[in-house]
Amino acid sequence: MIQQTEMKQQAVSSNDHTLHERLQALEARVQELESKLPEDRVAIVVFSGELDRVLAAFVIATGAAALGQNVSMFFTFWGLNALRRTRKLSGKKFGEKLMALMAPAGASKLPLSHLNFFGIGAKMMRAMMREKQVSSLEELMQLANSLGVRTIACEMSRDVMGISDEELAEGVEAGGVAAFLGEALRSRVTLFI
Amino acid sequence: MIQQTEMKQQAVSSNDHTLHERLQALEARVQELESKLPEDRVAIVVFSGELDRVLAAFVIATGAAALGQNVSMFFTFWGLNALRRTRKLSGKKFGEKLMALMAPAGASKLPLSHLNFFGIGAKMMRAMMREKQVSSLEELMQLANSLGVRTIACEMSRDVMGISDEELAEGVEAGGVAAFLGEALRSRVTLFI
Amino acid sequence: MIQQTEMKQQAVSSNDHTLHERLQALEARVQELESKLPEDRVAIVVFSGELDRVLAAFVIATGAAALGQNVSMFFTFWGLNALRRTRKLSGKKFGEKLMALMAPAGASKLPLSHLNFFGIGAKMMRAMMREKQVSSLEELMQLANSLGVRTIACEMSRDVMGISDEELAEGVEAGGVAAFLGEALRSRVTLFI
Repeated sequence: MIQQTEMKQQAVSSNDHTLHERLQALEARVQELESKLPEDRVAIVVFSGELDRVLAAFVIATGAAALGQNVSMFFTFWGLNALRRTRKLSGKKFGEKLMALMAPAGASKLPLSHLNFFGIGAKMMRAMMREKQVSSLEELMQLANSLGVRTIACEMSRDVMGISDEELAEGVEAGGVAAFLGEALRSRVTLFI
Repeated sequence: MIQQTEMKQQAVSSNDHTLHERLQALEARVQELESKLPEDRVAIVVFSGELDRVLAAFVIATGAAALGQNVSMFFTFWGLNALRRTRKLSGKKFGEKLMALMAPAGASKLPLSHLNFFGIGAKMMRAMMREKQVSSLEELMQLANSLGVRTIACEMSRDVMGISDEELAEGVEAGGVAAFLGEALRSRVTLFI
Repeated sequence: MIQQTEMKQQAVSSNDHTLHERLQALEARVQELESKLPEDRVAIVVFSGELDRVLAAFVIATGAAALGQNVSMFFTFWGLNALRRTRKLSGKKFGEKLMALMAPAGASKLPLSHLNFFGIGAKMMRAMMREKQVSSLEELMQLANSLGVRTIACEMSRDVMGISDEELAEGVEAGGVAAFLGEALRSRVTLFI
């Protein structure tokens, strides 16, 4: 009888050992899954520099931040115009000067992507938004800032267009495509606007 | 001998207890993972109001729905033009009237984003699509509807532009950025078109 | 005493059995999770055919490939212009000829989306990029190729626009919306450019 008990004991022990191993393997797989699961992040490329598109970007960004997401906005090419606070021509090369002169000098100067008519469309859109008490782009940008939305200016675009630090709004981080991908690859939502 | 058996028993029991606890912890982690995993959803923002871009949006939306995904399309800004079924000017303010008059009154009137030439390009594109027996935008919109693709009109844009319920196609839901994010944050694919 | 041991034995065995079953259920759930987790993939729709947007697409694509992601680029509509290597008119219908004549014949001919001024803007942008020793579009396309980025031309767009195989660059795969979704639904990052 005791012998039998011992045999059972050993069977249990061995089974126990298997369970332990299976559990350990499973724990490793779960840890791997956890590390690969999309995080509560939203990564947005703001490529466009038009009022309507930049507005859409900030509406989504602030909405996501209000929902507790970590939001990063990567401004590149024309999108950089939304982050300008001033225009500085001295020290710029010919092409850079031309670009700076043609580009809207800040968020308040952005055109509409359609029906702009030399800025009349953009002004009308802003007036219609005020009338309906919808937040302006500037208010949304402030809200984004206070909600902790990160704004990152693409270094390559800045370099090519010759945009200096002084020309950009305060609180703008510098970053490249690696910074964008570092966020985007672990984000739930990725958009190119 | 029996004492020894008892000790082993206790060791097994204690080990068993540990296994049970580890299993329980793991079950909780797996449940957490399951709740955070992207679902079979696709969320598309249709910001653009051009025939070619709206076509691309519906090709992707119907394709995804056919593959069993839950597809939601959020129409905002110019994208709303694709959902118009009529133009109504009475009751509109000046800016809203102007917007309504400048905007294409429905899917059949959308321009091309390039080479439109006052609508000739769009007509030519439609003729070329018919010739190759590719579904028209209207057919794709019907298909989307029958496949259960949700079409949601952005309330803020509608409000700013003064688009009334009568002006929108039937079956269009109302929603805001929160509705979009609610879908997008648990979607596999998110696009801004 | 022995009887008691036996009872305990059975209790342990039964508990053991439960643990085994719970473990098995959990293993199935973990396997399901693993199969549904986003993979190391990035899927990009290149709808636009402008130099600046195609550049942005290739900067992101090559960056992601360098980080070890499986990158697929789906060229559709105007994006196909970036993959043209030559223009062939014979055998084309009227609309197709017109489209071919109006479209830029390859990556080196793409316009800017803004400030293009009949190609002067695009040339200036290219000159400014050279000056800052930023890779040109052609160099990025070669890099993408050598990093194993897949370039897929949308069959429906090609068919509608009548673009023949000879007109496309070598190494371009054919694919439709199903091919895109097949990638996108298991990708970490999805973008529409």
